[in-house]
Amino acid sequence: MSISPRPQGGSLLLAVSVLFLSNGLQAALAFSPILRSAVGHDKIQSFVVQESRWSTLSPLFAGSIDGSKIVNPDHDILLRVARGEQTHRTPVWLMRQAGRYMAAFREYSEKYPFRQRSETPSMAIELSMQPLEAFGVDGVIMFSDILTPLPALGIEFDVISGKGPVIPNRIATAMDVDNVRRLDDPASSLPFVGETLRTLKNEVAGRATLLGFVGAPFTLAAYTIEGGSSKNCLKTKRMMMYDPTLLHVYLDKLATAIGDYACYQIENGAEVIQVFESWAHQLSPSQFLKYSKPYADKVTTIVKERHPEVPIIFFGHGASSFLELQGDMAADMICLDWQVDMATARRTLGAKPVSGNVDPTVLLGPPEGIVAAVDECVRKAGGGGHILNLGHGVIKTTPEDAVRLFVDTAKSIELKAASRESGSDGPPPSSLVRPALAGAGA
Amino acid sequence: MSISPRPQGGSLLLAVSVLFLSNGLQAALAFSPILRSAVGHDKIQSFVVQESRWSTLSPLFAGSIDGSKIVNPDHDILLRVARGEQTHRTPVWLMRQAGRYMAAFREYSEKYPFRQRSETPSMAIELSMQPLEAFGVDGVIMFSDILTPLPALGIEFDVISGKGPVIPNRIATAMDVDNVRRLDDPASSLPFVGETLRTLKNEVAGRATLLGFVGAPFTLAAYTIEGGSSKNCLKTKRMMMYDPTLLHVYLDKLATAIGDYACYQIENGAEVIQVFESWAHQLSPSQFLKYSKPYADKVTTIVKERHPEVPIIFFGHGASSFLELQGDMAADMICLDWQVDMATARRTLGAKPVSGNVDPTVLLGPPEGIVAAVDECVRKAGGGGHILNLGHGVIKTTPEDAVRLFVDTAKSIELKAASRESGSDGPPPSSLVRPALAGAGA
Repeated sequence: MSISPRPQGGSLLLAVSVLFLSNGLQAALAFSPILRSAVGHDKIQSFVVQESRWSTLSPLFAGSIDGSKIVNPDHDILLRVARGEQTHRTPVWLMRQAGRYMAAFREYSEKYPFRQRSETPSMAIELSMQPLEAFGVDGVIMFSDILTPLPALGIEFDVISGKGPVIPNRIATAMDVDNVRRLDDPASSLPFVGETLRTLKNEVAGRATLLGFVGAPFTLAAYTIEGGSSKNCLKTKRMMMYDPTLLHVYLDKLATAIGDYACYQIENGAEVIQVFESWAHQLSPSQFLKYSKPYADKVTTIVKERHPEVPIIFFGHGASSFLELQGDMAADMICLDWQVDMATARRTLGAKPVSGNVDPTVLLGPPEGIVAAVDECVRKAGGGGHILNLGHGVIKTTPEDAVRLFVDTAKSIELKAASRESGSDGPPPSSLVRPALAGAGA
Repeated sequence: MSISPRPQGGSLLLAVSVLFLSNGLQAALAFSPILRSAVGHDKIQSFVVQESRWSTLSPLFAGSIDGSKIVNPDHDILLRVARGEQTHRTPVWLMRQAGRYMAAFREYSEKYPFRQRSETPSMAIELSMQPLEAFGVDGVIMFSDILTPLPALGIEFDVISGKGPVIPNRIATAMDVDNVRRLDDPASSLPFVGETLRTLKNEVAGRATLLGFVGAPFTLAAYTIEGGSSKNCLKTKRMMMYDPTLLHVYLDKLATAIGDYACYQIENGAEVIQVFESWAHQLSPSQFLKYSKPYADKVTTIVKERHPEVPIIFFGHGASSFLELQGDMAADMICLDWQVDMATARRTLGAKPVSGNVDPTVLLGPPEGIVAAVDECVRKAGGGGHILNLGHGVIKTTPEDAVRLFVDTAKSIELKAASRESGSDGPPPSSLVRPALAGAGA
């Protein structure tokens, strides 16, 4: 049984949580020994076993009524972990969590082109909220794109279905770089972003953390130099090799604009900013050191100067092979892709909080695999300093029930008194307790 | 000046080596401080500066005349390093070294489809030899494909220009797996491979090491389950999650066939075998542990039982983020992609010899960048136990002169008395000496 109506005129959410899992017993049997051996002698309780394999799972919102509004006592759990605080469980959200795998999303994407959806506040708000309503994620991320601010800098783009972003007037020369504008007045040039975030902040207040995001300077530079997606990023690499000064000038200019843009998001409601270095896989470690890290750090520094309380998460997609270069980044948290072992990553990154890193394809598999993957990720993260996420975006053929189970499983694991020590040789032993999940059907 | 005629009736190679580098002085100035600071007080001599930017660089073959045949005293240097021996310099070859970036190669590729080229011994031999004749690489790799043995197992494939491999009857069911044949008699089912290698062995004798290669079981399984290239490898991942037993049966069957195929290559002349896990980027660390490593190791074990003297190189493309899982592989050497720092990789892998790992896009940049990249890679490798290579195949728009400079630079760096200690916390300090490169033009 599941009741989770859309909020009417405010933030009403009624969620009666029932976890049905026909394979729950098997799943519990499968993961319990793993968890037991991992956490030692701590007690792990099993799922309540119920009915059909994929049933009407619903968000595990434990709410208390505050006037007409149900307040989620965990509403700021993501924010607190991003700030480095210890929490009783691991917060969870997903990259590309509003997306084509959701029927409600497709109602829009089939009717309206991408830029219209992302630049019309009413649509962007609706799409941003869908995953909170459907799954009870701990973080709501503004529906937008890393390229969204480009037209405000004088660089037009479009998103072509099946092809991705296209930038007709790509950046090639010093004059092109010179013509890139500063983001002096985002309230005028990107008003829809401010409006979207202000409304979202009201919508999610007391229910979840609101995330804003930006593309990192290297990724935006590369997109605009290539003119779109690229296999080997050769135009950008040529600029790197034949005119590195021009690339540095461009990256610095972008870093300033992106820092300003992130501040504009914060000033309109964003509580956490994720910086996406989506093209980190195009970089060798030495190229990362030269062309990515300093400019991603500059974005963080600009934000910290004006908004020191706002956590910054850095995500380098494909950057797990040079994690040793990320532990000292200015960002508060490193988001991991799915090609690195979480325990290895924590050893490498030291005390830095992390987010990630489940393989998105796991959500196309059976429920017991999703439960096992979440458990393994949380266990290897070591009991704190971790926001659970996928290591990349949700794949469009992912069943919605799989996302629901991913979120519910994350929220069902209790972390007990785990304290991470900076500089230790790995995550500390931690306690994971899975309470019996019981609702109306239990 | 360069004289390097194709061998007539045997293995005649005349190579007068001249290195012209108009930017050589700048290059020397650029890398010398880096090298000096890295190697301490060792003397590094500069390039001889000559003439035009890209000139007719030629292989640095220091040959001694043995009858009508010039013998390269370094002819087995690649083999020796793969076996773990110390050598006076770092051997060099390139992945996809015979390829569309070569004009001589395009003469064939524009006329004949891929399978015809790779399965006709006269063509495969010609194409395999082109890079030795043109660049004096230390290793010649048979021109072929990882999919080449599939028809002998009952799985047909084609290579469609612009699309890649296509497997019309993809593997989906237990019956499909059951129908996959053993490689009982490769001399009958793959006679062209034996003939190609036997001739190549004669051609390269005294001049270079002859490499054979195979696809690793997971990569071949995934190609045949997907039916071709794939972004997320979802069909294979589904089999992994919903019917892992079937996938394990298939992988085991493939490992046996691939092991037999590698032995057949060795029995026909291959002196080293490289095992390509080209789709390692599709794997999380735990998936690598379950579905790649044991079967790649099985291939190695099959070879070692029959040919213990033949070194095996394992290349996991995109596997640098879980290098800690590769140090104990059965293979003799780990080939690194370009997204990991060489020094970090050596610390992680311990005493295991490595090959790699220069970013292939460096070859599309200026000469000084190529020289610096080679120097950095060799220096970070620590003075031995290293075959220089790119971290992926040569990109098709690469200038031939860039490949020539890459090879020449590698061959110009002398390693002095470097001894690597197993289990140490990094590569030992080593000595790199670049002799003055002088030829007729000096």
